[in-house]
Parts: sequence; C-alpha cells; structure tokens
Amino acid sequence: MTKPLNIGMIGYGFMGRAHSNAYCKVNNFFKLEHRPVLKAVCARNKDKAQAFANNWGYESIETDWRELLKRDDIDAVDICTPNNLHKEIAIAAAEAGKMILCEKPLAMDVKEGEQMVKAVEKAGVRNMVWYNYRRVPAVTLAKQLIDEGRLGRIFHYRAVFLQDWTISADVPQGGAATWRLDAEAAGSGVTGDLLAHCIDTAIWLNGPMTNVTAMTETFVKERKHAETGQMQKVGIDDACAFLGHFKNGSLAVFESTRYARGHKALYTFEINGENASIAWDLHDLHRLSFFDHRDESKLRGWKSVHVTDGDHPYMGNWWVPGLQIGYEHSFVHQVADFLKSLETGEPAQPDFASALETQKVCDAVLKSAQDGKWAEVG
Amino acid sequence: MTKPLNIGMIGYGFMGRAHSNAYCKVNNFFKLEHRPVLKAVCARNKDKAQAFANNWGYESIETDWRELLKRDDIDAVDICTPNNLHKEIAIAAAEAGKMILCEKPLAMDVKEGEQMVKAVEKAGVRNMVWYNYRRVPAVTLAKQLIDEGRLGRIFHYRAVFLQDWTISADVPQGGAATWRLDAEAAGSGVTGDLLAHCIDTAIWLNGPMTNVTAMTETFVKERKHAETGQMQKVGIDDACAFLGHFKNGSLAVFESTRYARGHKALYTFEINGENASIAWDLHDLHRLSFFDHRDESKLRGWKSVHVTDGDHPYMGNWWVPGLQIGYEHSFVHQVADFLKSLETGEPAQPDFASALETQKVCDAVLKSAQDGKWAEVG
Amino acid sequence: MTKPLNIGMIGYGFMGRAHSNAYCKVNNFFKLEHRPVLKAVCARNKDKAQAFANNWGYESIETDWRELLKRDDIDAVDICTPNNLHKEIAIAAAEAGKMILCEKPLAMDVKEGEQMVKAVEKAGVRNMVWYNYRRVPAVTLAKQLIDEGRLGRIFHYRAVFLQDWTISADVPQGGAATWRLDAEAAGSGVTGDLLAHCIDTAIWLNGPMTNVTAMTETFVKERKHAETGQMQKVGIDDACAFLGHFKNGSLAVFESTRYARGHKALYTFEINGENASIAWDLHDLHRLSFFDHRDESKLRGWKSVHVTDGDHPYMGNWWVPGLQIGYEHSFVHQVADFLKSLETGEPAQPDFASALETQKVCDAVLKSAQDGKWAEVG
Amino acid sequence: MTKPLNIGMIGYGFMGRAHSNAYCKVNNFFKLEHRPVLKAVCARNKDKAQAFANNWGYESIETDWRELLKRDDIDAVDICTPNNLHKEIAIAAAEAGKMILCEKPLAMDVKEGEQMVKAVEKAGVRNMVWYNYRRVPAVTLAKQLIDEGRLGRIFHYRAVFLQDWTISADVPQGGAATWRLDAEAAGSGVTGDLLAHCIDTAIWLNGPMTNVTAMTETFVKERKHAETGQMQKVGIDDACAFLGHFKNGSLAVFESTRYARGHKALYTFEINGENASIAWDLHDLHRLSFFDHRDESKLRGWKSVHVTDGDHPYMGNWWVPGLQIGYEHSFVHQVADFLKSLETGEPAQPDFASALETQKVCDAVLKSAQDGKWAEVG
Repeated sequence: MTKPLNIGMIGYGFMGRAHSNAYCKVNNFFKLEHRPVLKAVCARNKDKAQAFANNWGYESIETDWRELLKRDDIDAVDICTPNNLHKEIAIAAAEAGKMILCEKPLAMDVKEGEQMVKAVEKAGVRNMVWYNYRRVPAVTLAKQLIDEGRLGRIFHYRAVFLQDWTISADVPQGGAATWRLDAEAAGSGVTGDLLAHCIDTAIWLNGPMTNVTAMTETFVKERKHAETGQMQKVGIDDACAFLGHFKNGSLAVFESTRYARGHKALYTFEINGENASIAWDLHDLHRLSFFDHRDESKLRGWKSVHVTDGDHPYMGNWWVPGLQIGYEHSFVHQVADFLKSLETGEPAQPDFASALETQKVCDAVLKSAQDGKWAEVG
Repeated sequence: MTKPLNIGMIGYGFMGRAHSNAYCKVNNFFKLEHRPVLKAVCARNKDKAQAFANNWGYESIETDWRELLKRDDIDAVDICTPNNLHKEIAIAAAEAGKMILCEKPLAMDVKEGEQMVKAVEKAGVRNMVWYNYRRVPAVTLAKQLIDEGRLGRIFHYRAVFLQDWTISADVPQGGAATWRLDAEAAGSGVTGDLLAHCIDTAIWLNGPMTNVTAMTETFVKERKHAETGQMQKVGIDDACAFLGHFKNGSLAVFESTRYARGHKALYTFEINGENASIAWDLHDLHRLSFFDHRDESKLRGWKSVHVTDGDHPYMGNWWVPGLQIGYEHSFVHQVADFLKSLETGEPAQPDFASALETQKVCDAVLKSAQDGKWAEVG
Repeated sequence: MTKPLNIGMIGYGFMGRAHSNAYCKVNNFFKLEHRPVLKAVCARNKDKAQAFANNWGYESIETDWRELLKRDDIDAVDICTPNNLHKEIAIAAAEAGKMILCEKPLAMDVKEGEQMVKAVEKAGVRNMVWYNYRRVPAVTLAKQLIDEGRLGRIFHYRAVFLQDWTISADVPQGGAATWRLDAEAAGSGVTGDLLAHCIDTAIWLNGPMTNVTAMTETFVKERKHAETGQMQKVGIDDACAFLGHFKNGSLAVFESTRYARGHKALYTFEINGENASIAWDLHDLHRLSFFDHRDESKLRGWKSVHVTDGDHPYMGNWWVPGLQIGYEHSFVHQVADFLKSLETGEPAQPDFASALETQKVCDAVLKSAQDGKWAEVG
Repeated sequence: MTKPLNIGMIGYGFMGRAHSNAYCKVNNFFKLEHRPVLKAVCARNKDKAQAFANNWGYESIETDWRELLKRDDIDAVDICTPNNLHKEIAIAAAEAGKMILCEKPLAMDVKEGEQMVKAVEKAGVRNMVWYNYRRVPAVTLAKQLIDEGRLGRIFHYRAVFLQDWTISADVPQGGAATWRLDAEAAGSGVTGDLLAHCIDTAIWLNGPMTNVTAMTETFVKERKHAETGQMQKVGIDDACAFLGHFKNGSLAVFESTRYARGHKALYTFEINGENASIAWDLHDLHRLSFFDHRDESKLRGWKSVHVTDGDHPYMGNWWVPGLQIGYEHSFVHQVADFLKSLETGEPAQPDFASALETQKVCDAVLKSAQDGKWAEVG
C-alpha cells in the first residue's frame, strides 16, 4: 500500500491547477511508495477556495495560510502565491516543520532567498522549487547527453523566452490574473517570470554563471491597476536581455520579452559544444534537436528526436512511441521525483539552495540593467 | 452536484489505460453535469484485473463480462477488448440496456457491424466508437474550417498512417501485447488498426467514399505465436494502400504500413480545396497547417497554427496559449463530449452507425486488394 | 585548351533557357575537356529565335529544324520542343549523326519511344534525356546511400509531384505557354509532365516497376484554346495517382496533380528500408532527410542534411558549406556529366533506353486508369 | 544594343568568383541598358591571375593594381582583396575616376571608412559595397513589408550569424585561404566578417542603432600562420555578441561566432513589431516567415512564404513558382541594381556612406567589448 503525503495547497491560480493535476495523476502512471492526498487548499476568498476544492477533490479549505500551517494533518505545503508572499510563508512553513514545494522564482530577491534557504536548512525540512522544465523529457534527455560528455568543451549557450501577451496597453496590472505585471507582487517582470526558467535550466545543464551585462525595457509605461482602476507607472521589465559568461568559459546570450509578436511561450535553448550541439523549443516540447559532428561527414545534420520512446526519460510510464505528452506532464514528473526522493532520502532538485543560484543571476541581471555596467553573479 | 455515470470497463490494455485516465480527468477540466464513476473493470485474469482496479481506482472487478452486464450499478460499458469480441459483447450490452463505448474498429467486418448497429438501435441505447483523433483540437479545428466553407470545392484528400514497429521478424503474433498481428483476433492488420482512423477522419471531414482500388502486402510471412510459441502463417496485412473517390468528386490516396522505418505513429492527412488547403500530422498534433489562396499573393504560404489558444476547440479548458496538450487529451475530449451528449440528448459521434461507414470502406479495401479490382463501397 | 561542342538548340521556351544557362555556366565551375558552344537556336518564329539568340549569345538562328540538322557545324542537338515533336526530330537527328539531348518525357508513348531508341542505337549517336532531378545534389546523395546498401531491404517508395497552377478554369490550353494542357502537344497531362520525373528517379533509386493500378481525373472539362480562342474538351489528366510494385518487392504509391492548392512544385519522395529511410522535397532541394535505425536508440531521429558541403555530390564545385544552390544547377550538373561522358566514353544517363523504361510505366499507368484494371509494365 | 561597362577585378578568391559569375549572368536574366565586360583581373601572382582570367573570360591580367587603375579601358574597379587593402585601393581608384564596387566590410575601422567616403564624394564616382544579403529575394520582401508599415511599432530585432569552421585548433591563420583569421589582414574576426552583414541588414530594415554593450571571445589563443608556419597569437574575435538600442526604440540582440557546432552559415534575423513579425534564415534563403497578428484569431500562425513567385522581388526574372534560386543570385541582383542605377542616376545601395554606418556599429561593438562598458555608435 502507498503511504499518504498530505498536501496543503496555498493559492488556486494557474499553478494551483497544474500542481493539483499532477498530484491526481502521478500514481496512475508511476509506481511509487507514496501517494499525495489533497488535504486542504488555502485562499483568502472562501468561495473561490471552496470551488477549487470541489473541482479537484481537496478535502477541506482554509482562508488563512497560518491556520493551514498549524494543522497536523498537513505534511507538505505547496506555495502557489504571487512571489511577494513566498518568503514569509516558506519561513513559517519551515518553522512549522512542513515540507515545502514552492513556485518559482524562489523569492523577490537574493536577500529573501537567502533567508528562505537558511530557514529550510535550519528546520531540516524537504524543499523544492517548481522549475518544471527540467522534467520535460526532451530537456532531461539533453541533461543525460551532456552528463555523458557528448558535447565536449562548451562554447555557447543561448536561450530565449518570448511571449506576446502584454503588447496591448489595455492589459491591466495587478489583481489575481495579472499580478505578474505588478512589481509589488512579482518583484520583476520577465526576468523573474521567464528568464528565471532559462537560467535554472542553464545552470543545471551548463554550470554556474559568473558575470553579466544586461538591458531591460518597459515598453508600456503606465497601465491601469486591475483592482483599483487607477493608471499607475509600470514597475516591471517588459523585456530583458543579457550577455554573460559561464564558469566553464562558455558564452551566454539570453533574452526574454512579452513583446515578441507571434510567440506565445517560445522558450528555446541551444548549446554548442566542440563535438555536438543540442537545441530545444517549448512550442514542440516533445522533440530534441541534436547535431553530432562525429557523424560521418556527408551525413551530418540536425536530427529531430521525437522524445516519445520507452527509453526516453519518463516516457516508459506513458503511452507508446510516437504519442506526445504535453506541458502538464512536466509537473507530474516533478511530483514523481519528489515522491521518489522520499523513498531514497536524496533531496529533490532543484531545492531552495539550487534555486537561490538562479536568483543570484536574476539579481545580477537587474543590477546590470540598472547600472549600465557588467555585474558579477553572487 | 454532478450526476454519476457508472462505468464498467472490459479490458485493461493500452486503451483501458487511455480511457481510464480520461474518465479520471474530465471533470477537473470540463464543466459537466455528469461525472464518470469507475465502478468495475472486467478481465479474465483476476490478478491483472485487480492490479488495474487498484491503479485506477475501480471499485470492483469482474472476470466474466456477462456478469458485468448483469449488474444494475453499471450504466455504461466500455469495450476495450480485441476486435473479435466487440460484436458479441456489444450486442449483449445493448440487450442489457447499457450505454456502450466501443473501441475501434467497430467490428471484424461489415456483417458484424450491421448486427451491432441493429442491436443498439433496437435497444435504444447510447453508443459511441473511440475514433479519438476527431477530438485532437487541431483536427476539430480543421473540421470547423471545412464546415465554414473555407476550402471551396475539394480536389484531393490524402492520408497516411505509418509505423515501423513490426519490421523485425522476431515480433510475435497473438497474445495480450501483440494480438493486433493475429488475424483471428484483429480481423485485419493495418487496415482495421490504422487506416480505419484515417477513413473515419476522412468521412467526417470530406463525406462518404464511393469506390476504391487497393493493394496489401504481408512482408513477414510467418511469425511465432506469443502464447503457443508455434510459427504460423501471418494472416494480417502489414501494409495497405488504396486509391478511391469521394462522393463529392475528390480523389483519395491512402496508405498505411508498419514498415515505414523512422515513423512511430505518423498519421497525417492533407486536403486540397479550390481556395485553401489543410494539413495535419499526429507527430506534432498540436499544430495545424493551413494555406489560404485568398491571402495576398506575395504573402501566400503554409501557416503553422499552434493550436493552443483559448478560442481553439477544447483548449479553453486547459492551460494558456503556447502550452501543448498531448495524445491522451483526445480521449478526455471524447468523454467530455459523450457526457455533454447526456445533457443535450444529441447522439455522441461517431456512433455505431457512423463507424459502420468506415467499416464499409475497410471491407471494400480488403476486397479490392484480394480481387485486384476496383470495389464499390457499401 | 577545351574542345568545342557545338550546340544546336531547338525551342526557346522555359527549358531552352534552363539548358542555355547550363551551357554558359558549366565551364566556369567544372574542369572539363569540352566546352559547349552556342552555335544555333532554331524556332519557327524568326524574331523570337533572334531575340533568344541575342539574349544567350547563340551565333546564328534557324527557323526549320531540318535545316539545322543539315549543318556540319552542329555536333549536338538539344530538343526542347513540345512532346509531339520529339520523335520526328530525334530520329532525323540520329540519322544526321548528331548527338541528341532530348527533353523529357522521351516520347508521346512507348511506341514512339521504341522507334527513337532504335534510331539512336542504329546511328550510334550519344543520347540523353533531361531528367534533371537526378542531378540535384541531395538526390544524387540519396543514390549514393542506396548504392552503399545503407537502407537494407526496401519496403516502400512513395512520391508525389503536386502543383496548383491550373485550378482556375480560365487557364487556356494549347499555344506556346500552355501546350502542356493540350493533349495533342503533350500526349498526357501530369503523367508525362510530372509523374515521369517521379518515375525516372524511382527506377534509378529503386529499380524497375512491374505493375500498377491507377486513376486519373480531369477536373476542368473544357478550356479555351490559347491560339484559336475556341472552347474545347480537355484531353489531358489533371491528376493521376497509382499504386504498384517494384521488382524488388517494395510497394509504390505515387500521386501527381496540378490541383493541390498551396504547392507550386512539390516533388517529394520517401524510401523506407529495413535499416534506414530517406526523404527529399524539391521545395527545399538542398536538404536530404535521413533516418538511420542503427543509430543509438535514444538518439534516433530524422536528420536534415544541408547538402552544401564539399564532399557532397557536385558541391565541391560551387561555394562554401551552408550556401545553397538552386534548381538551375541540376542542369549544369547534367551538362557537366554529359561532357564528362565524352571524356570517358561511358554513356551519359539517363539515355533514351533508360527513359523508355519510364515511358513504359507512364503508359501502363494511363492504360490502367482507362481500363480500371491493374496493368503490367512493359 | 547594350552599353559595355568595363570591369577591372582586383582579387581572385571566393568573392572574385561570386562577382564574376554575377557579371556573366546578369544580362541573360535582366533587361538592362548596360552589360559588364570582363576587361581585366588583377592579382600579384601572375599564374593565378591568368588561370582565373581563363576560367571566367577576362580579357587581360594585371599584377599591380596601380597599373590597373591607370588603364583607360577600365570603367569600374571591383575590390575583392583582404580588408586591409580596401582603403588604399579605393582612394586611388576614386582619384583615378573609376566607379568602385568594394567588398564588405568597407574598411578596417571607421577612420579608414571616413577617408574612403570622403574620397568617393570628392571624386564624384559611383560606389557600392557588396552587402549582398539585401538582394536575397526573401530579404528584399521583408524590406517591402516593413516599408508598407505592416509591422507597426518595432519592439525587437535579433540576428545571429553562426558558423563552425574554425573550431579545430589546426586551422591556420593568414594566407590566401585563411586571411579572415588574421587580425592584420581582416581587422577583426566575426565582427567585421559576419556581424557586419547582420548590422547592414538591420540598419536597412530597422534604421540606425544608437548604443551597444558587447562581449568578444577568442577560444583558440594561438594558431600557426599559413605562410610562415609560426605559431602566433590569434588577434581576432572568434565570437562576438552585443545588446543595443535602435533609434526607433527597439532592442537589439546580436550574436556571431565560428564555434557554433552544426551551423555552417546560419544567418538569421527576426523582427517583432506591434502588428506582425518577420523571420529569415540563410540556410533556407528562399523562404520568409511571417506572422500577422491581424489575421483571424484562430488562424494566426507563422507562415512560410516560398519566395519563388513572379511577384516576389527579382523572381520574375528567373524560373517558375516553386523553383529555388541560391546564394549566388544575390550577387546577380546586386549587379543588376548597380547597372540599373547607371540608367536612373540614383546611387546604388549600400554605397560607401551607408556602409560607413555599419562600420560605426562594428567599431562601437569592439570598443565596448574591450572596455566592458556601453558604447555610443558614431
């Protein structure tokens, strides 16, 4: 019999849905000793909390996250709130001895992140951050290829995360649906929201970054606030790009924007090594592009691997070769790995300490953009 | 509150998993009056039935489908057995007054299919066949575009379903995993397994077919039987291609094989109309290719629509633009539509009568391949 | 010093331009003993012949091809006329002892083609047919891969040649620009014009074909004649598809049409072998797709080879890796190979005898489409 | 009758071939009043000059470019030498009253470039720089679309030029074949060689740039000199990336390298505007990708335009829709436009003054990379 892991979810938005779905599905597809139980969902608005609980089968609701943390029947807290609440909740949860699964980015800034890392380390509680793209099978396959040494010395790493949903000046900022445009709630714009994903993957695949030079832009200077209806200055970065160096000597070129017409969520990365190169694209997340210079000369070319076979990461748990999975499965995989970590005792990755490294790059990027100078990471 | 729809599943293979997953997920993502309840799963092997029930949360098991049909607490029977059992079970289920959801192809041949249609019509029970590809959002979008008259007169419809998993002569026939290679269990090879999908979609999008000329091939003539270990003649078609006409005057070119090295499950179709053309590819099922001749001359080209927006069919129920769903979601959509049909009273499509039309084309194809002559459909 | 090869061109249309360009360029890029000299162009309309001569640098003009054949200063005759003149000119040219480069298809039918083969063999003159696609570097590379045995046993060969330029009923038939729609001048429609290319390549890559079942269609039944202005019945096939067998046991599926909206000149082929598969597409003619099942399992995928390297066929003579050549270069290569054959004494391929094999398939296809029965080739 | 334009070519390398081919072909395909005549080729090595003259039909040779400039029978000088000779030759040619067609980049640096601009302006001679990519039909089409205002306000411009030919430490520097790796001859590495192309196109399409922050890298620190055989420090940049701003407020992200394994000559750019986006890729130079947000919502997508129709820029002069041209044709178009400018009296673009703007960005990029600070352009 599987052992229950009682989940207390805080927040009910997009990520609340993605995580809940993952908790519901994981044991249907993965053989694990533990089984998430949807014990409680917490949100300030009681009706919305109840509707969410009904939809997903949460056994109970809370309207104050402090109450949730007091409950003995909660093993793990899942933090799906806007970024400005991560720190306070996470530290309290650690103190309450709860495991913590926290949405990304870890914190509003490095200072907050450091406090959070300290708290979980002091409390000795399990902790993980939802950088879900590591668990897209094609991305995990990229990690395998790199770990196997197939690329040789790395020269280049480039990544973009391009969207186009905020081009209209009529999109408001703040509120439940658009808090990501509100600097108070989000901390930063595309840097924490999108580039953070790119950076987490990059550090995982290519090691730490050392320094950056960056630029940011806010194309729409004022937006109406969704709740107050007042026009107010936009404090976030609509676009951010940076150059930099990895510790291994390779060069970084990163860019993110919500003003790239035609791209809904185009997260791509490409790594160029001495012997081989890898490229991936979230818009076709089930494929991995691979070029191997050691192939016979006249037959060299970029190969599109349809990552749907039983020997591809995670895929033996799903359907048959040729049949795609989607975005939501990356969360199922992350839950599966978290549950597996309870069996093995190994920390599930990325933990808070790992996510703090990404935060350090984000902070350096924002600092460089403000100062107009190269900034050291960390 | 939602009304329960008690499901009795017969079979526990690949399709049993796909359907069970759909029953579990549908109400998390679609607002519906009804909710599937996993009441019982039936399989001859008790241990396997129990393991499946445990995995998916079926409340009980049966080892004889006749017993399942006797139960009052079963509203709908889901037939996921090999093809040679469809007819007998479906007719008995109809007589027992159960709704029926039957895997495709409907039957071993037209004669069986006609009996099944007659049975469900006589009993007045709801019935549906799992031609799931109609519910891939990109395919449903294709249907919308055609219904809106965007293509004009249709000249060509071509489809392929290419796989490569039986090339090795070591793949056995028969048994639980490879019954599709056994003519006794499957009726035919790629014709009923793969071309049936192509034909169902084609009739849905382009109307009835009138005649065909076909060829089939069995590349590996003998295979070991998975259960007996005996080498025996292969009775199925490894490959099948046919030409034909649609009633609307357009030309059909269809091909299917399990010997197309490099293709895992490449189902593609393309429709060429006077004004516009459409193409789709299962290996990137979240995209639809569209060419519109009425575009400005110098900017004409094939457009790749990333079918992940809220105004695309079914997609408003899932994530945000740019984030893919996968193969399994087509089944969720089919369940959602079936449940919706209980609200509206409209029959869910394709019903048995509709699936019989596909069966008629399959039979004509096999007849033509055998005779070496053009065959009329129906 | 290079030796002159005096060319007499008959016709000045699209193919006249393509060939003339090839004659002009070949020695700039290929080291050869011979050099084409543009001695004369022949066309019934004197002004047009002169304009063409001026544009390309032909030294003289003729208005009667019989006069051209009488000239001692012509070594080789290039037949770029409509198909219905090929036979008469080619036989007279052979009798006059001229080398012959004849546009494809070889003839109006097998009967004519046989007379032509007989004539050139009797006269012992060099002869070649302009099936230029063999000389697209990616296609030549495909040939190399097959000759090296990389595909293993072949199961499938499929090809399409799709265009959309005759969909409008206002396109006339007959005349200089649209003789391809006139059965009198062209013999057949897409079969001789487009499928002939597909068949030539197929026989070259995969060996002879044995039998076929075909269908043809004429979507627009009447068109105005470009010269007379009279509406008259359309005698050609607008579309043609056929199934068949190769002698090596593989299956053929071929289709061609001028009614595939969105495709300008989409000639594609794909070959599926036991060990590997190959695909090519004229719309991106500088690429070859290759799938090798012997690749490491988790890294199998279709590879897109950018056929622009020095070790790719013909490409060492052009630019540097990554820089494309285009359609016209296939003719340059064919001329280079023809000139090379003068050095080596080997016949340049495809010669008339080889092109006759393609004609036999075309005739079988048209016969099958007319009879509604399978037809044997040859 | 066409008027001769007597060409004196200096240099016989890769670009010498590309230009010679363009001079030979242009009048076959474009109706023009002028016709280039290959009067003389100049190179220090007499044998090589003669071989080149023989191959392309140059009437004479010179071994000292100063002698060439003295000849009265030369109307236009084409400078295809390494970069370090551009200035001296160009200024002398201007003083000699010759038209000048100069390879890119214009000069070793802005200071040289300014002298060159001054010289041609003083002399009043026609001048042009071979930024050939403007004349790829798909790129010219992009320019048309922008000029028509289809993109609206521009937010982003990104470009890369990725190669992989110098990864091996065994590639030498200096000498005829590899002078591009020698700082003495080339001035810079990828910045002047590759980024200069990206910048020229960018300024043409999106207007002037105002400031940049850049990084460069030299991965292989020492290489053998091709002529001396001595190992010596590598002075050029192997890779260069920069961020910056355009005067119109849009953001620039540019990157170039010769260490991107798998890319032979991957020049791509993408422009994101308020209403539409454009992307292009040199590896498939005959296609343009276009996304129009004003398309109907459910049918929005990136369109791949096969730029081979008669109403596409330059294409009416070539073949028929669907048939590609290649790299070399961009030079033919540039010659055609230069000859046309003799008819119209308008300057052919880019002239020296225009190319100087690109040089200014290159200099700012190199300065920023050296200083580690943002640099102003100009």
